Amino acid sequence: MTDTLNSRLSDYAAIAADLGVDAVALVPGANFTRAVGQSFSSHERPFLLVIPARAPAAALVPNLELGSWAQVGFDGAVFDWRDQDGYDRAFADLMAHLHLSTLAVEGQVMRVFVHHALKKARPELQISDAEREISSLRMIKTEADVAAMQRAIDISERALRRTLDSVKLGQTEKEIEQTLVGLLFEEGADALAFSPIVAAGDGSARPHAHARHDYRVKAGDALLIDFGARKDGFCADITRTVFLQTVSDEGRAVYDTVLRANLAGLAVTRAGVSAHDIDDAATSVLEASPFADRIRTKTGHGLGREVHEAPYVMRGNHMVLPAGTVYTNEPGLYQIGSFGVRIEDDVLVTETGYRTLTRFPKDLLVLPC
Amino acid sequence: MTDTLNSRLSDYAAIAADLGVDAVALVPGANFTRAVGQSFSSHERPFLLVIPARAPAAALVPNLELGSWAQVGFDGAVFDWRDQDGYDRAFADLMAHLHLSTLAVEGQVMRVFVHHALKKARPELQISDAEREISSLRMIKTEADVAAMQRAIDISERALRRTLDSVKLGQTEKEIEQTLVGLLFEEGADALAFSPIVAAGDGSARPHAHARHDYRVKAGDALLIDFGARKDGFCADITRTVFLQTVSDEGRAVYDTVLRANLAGLAVTRAGVSAHDIDDAATSVLEASPFADRIRTKTGHGLGREVHEAPYVMRGNHMVLPAGTVYTNEPGLYQIGSFGVRIEDDVLVTETGYRTLTRFPKDLLVLPC
Repeated sequence: MTDTLNSRLSDYAAIAADLGVDAVALVPGANFTRAVGQSFSSHERPFLLVIPARAPAAALVPNLELGSWAQVGFDGAVFDWRDQDGYDRAFADLMAHLHLSTLAVEGQVMRVFVHHALKKARPELQISDAEREISSLRMIKTEADVAAMQRAIDISERALRRTLDSVKLGQTEKEIEQTLVGLLFEEGADALAFSPIVAAGDGSARPHAHARHDYRVKAGDALLIDFGARKDGFCADITRTVFLQTVSDEGRAVYDTVLRANLAGLAVTRAGVSAHDIDDAATSVLEASPFADRIRTKTGHGLGREVHEAPYVMRGNHMVLPAGTVYTNEPGLYQIGSFGVRIEDDVLVTETGYRTLTRFPKDLLVLPC
Repeated sequence: MTDTLNSRLSDYAAIAADLGVDAVALVPGANFTRAVGQSFSSHERPFLLVIPARAPAAALVPNLELGSWAQVGFDGAVFDWRDQDGYDRAFADLMAHLHLSTLAVEGQVMRVFVHHALKKARPELQISDAEREISSLRMIKTEADVAAMQRAIDISERALRRTLDSVKLGQTEKEIEQTLVGLLFEEGADALAFSPIVAAGDGSARPHAHARHDYRVKAGDALLIDFGARKDGFCADITRTVFLQTVSDEGRAVYDTVLRANLAGLAVTRAGVSAHDIDDAATSVLEASPFADRIRTKTGHGLGREVHEAPYVMRGNHMVLPAGTVYTNEPGLYQIGSFGVRIEDDVLVTETGYRTLTRFPKDLLVLPC
């Protein structure tokens, strides 16, 4: 086992010890990728890495992944299983090998069929949700992590600039989305960080809208684009809202309010403040405006290997943000049936303040089209 | 509630009744999309549709999704929750409203944090995994489903043709992947059905390999490309393996074996045969060859809104395939450290036989490069 791998696995052993459980289990996803230094997917096949607090780690690996798994350099026990035979035996052997009573898992990643397979192999096993503790290891980004994220963001912003330059009245949301996606890959994206949101008019008021084939953008529309490239394992997540040809007084006032909220969130950002503090600063601006009834979301979330990860930037989350955290600052106001505005930056927390990794201008932009 | 929505929900009520449980629960994913006719995502936010066997359905919806949810036309009870408040109360209210003792869930979709939230709201709730029964509703494709899948496949095959025409010795796997992805969008893909596999040389022997930045393709390499477009909600999933400039006798023999396995699987395909029968026909060809020790996978899986869905085409799965099923026929042989070959078609099961939706030639192709 390489020293790097050993050291990364010992981080999870320490979490198990801290939580007072026998072991931590990881399934393919961002934590798994961080732990083993390589990305795996699992689909319908259970794939499990168990790191005990005080014993060597062991893995349950689908047989067809053994070739890729060999690249990881893992020298603990491996229990593989073939599609033809099913996985019950591998779970039973893994459990017999490990002697666990308590196991902490990633509650937002592990699916119920793996939970059931664990309980079937050892009915008395106590499974607890340690999503927060396990994922917190990904919260402080290394320099290399930030550099990868900056590449993803730079690609995204170049694609956004070119997309906005190409927008014409009468295009469908879907056509604009296709332009954006093509340009993301042309600019060097490895993949999409998530399916983009390209939403105009009343669509912009739905925070997770899908681009429509049958909605053609028209003068006066708000056009909200929320998207990001994935590069070298890390995600960008940026939103800008522009207006097409003209903007109403209401549109202007709402935009100004959201921008002030975004800036208020940034203003309080520095190592040592809590996620609560940042959301409170941004949301207070929205609440004090005439548009308080259009608030529908918290201010943001952590960003890294996953598009949504800890810390969740919301009131009540008193987690203190250390230097190296990257979060999205994305206040918005949404009037259902009318229009919505969101402005989203990716923000690196530093000892003395912050650095916005996103640099796309935030002044109100009315596209000539 | 529209008649269509009512009728789709009643399919799930019937499953609950058949299973003898009080209700079925769906979370965002392919079954949820089929049920409500619209696609949602959930990330860290629980989102749940519960369909009782003998009572109106109810939903637990993140507040910020209410705008999109309103488009669904659902007139049952809705329990929404805001990020600021958390979701425990909404789960408690939902459970108090429904009076459930037993609940069947999609074990491969629902994550452990939702399972835990349900158990917290009602500790005596018995949660069972009905992935198979719930997902089986998606197994028989309608004409519209097949038409969408054919569009996805046609886009994919045009992109593959153009990609292969562009391959040059000395390119990295990553460069070939970027060409492929760009062409998929240019040809009209809405999205990627999954992250493509572009793997040459020893990489082709790893069934779920990732394209490498540092591997340059060379004469004699096997080049395996496994990929697909997503179009109008449906997926393509196609694999072809070609050789670059030249092919060894071993490469030719392995290719011929895999092709015969693919054809043997097709030959037995018609409505009424089991998933076991198809895998058995294909795998028997591989087993009877000199390369039996290179078998690492089952023959295939269902294809539709998800890239991997029921039926899993493997020995031991005696599920009978009805007309309208679409499955992937993708036998392969993989020699770790050397090379692998996989040939994958998307196959529509008909009353009298089958129709391959993929039409890309399967004869051994040695690219001039």
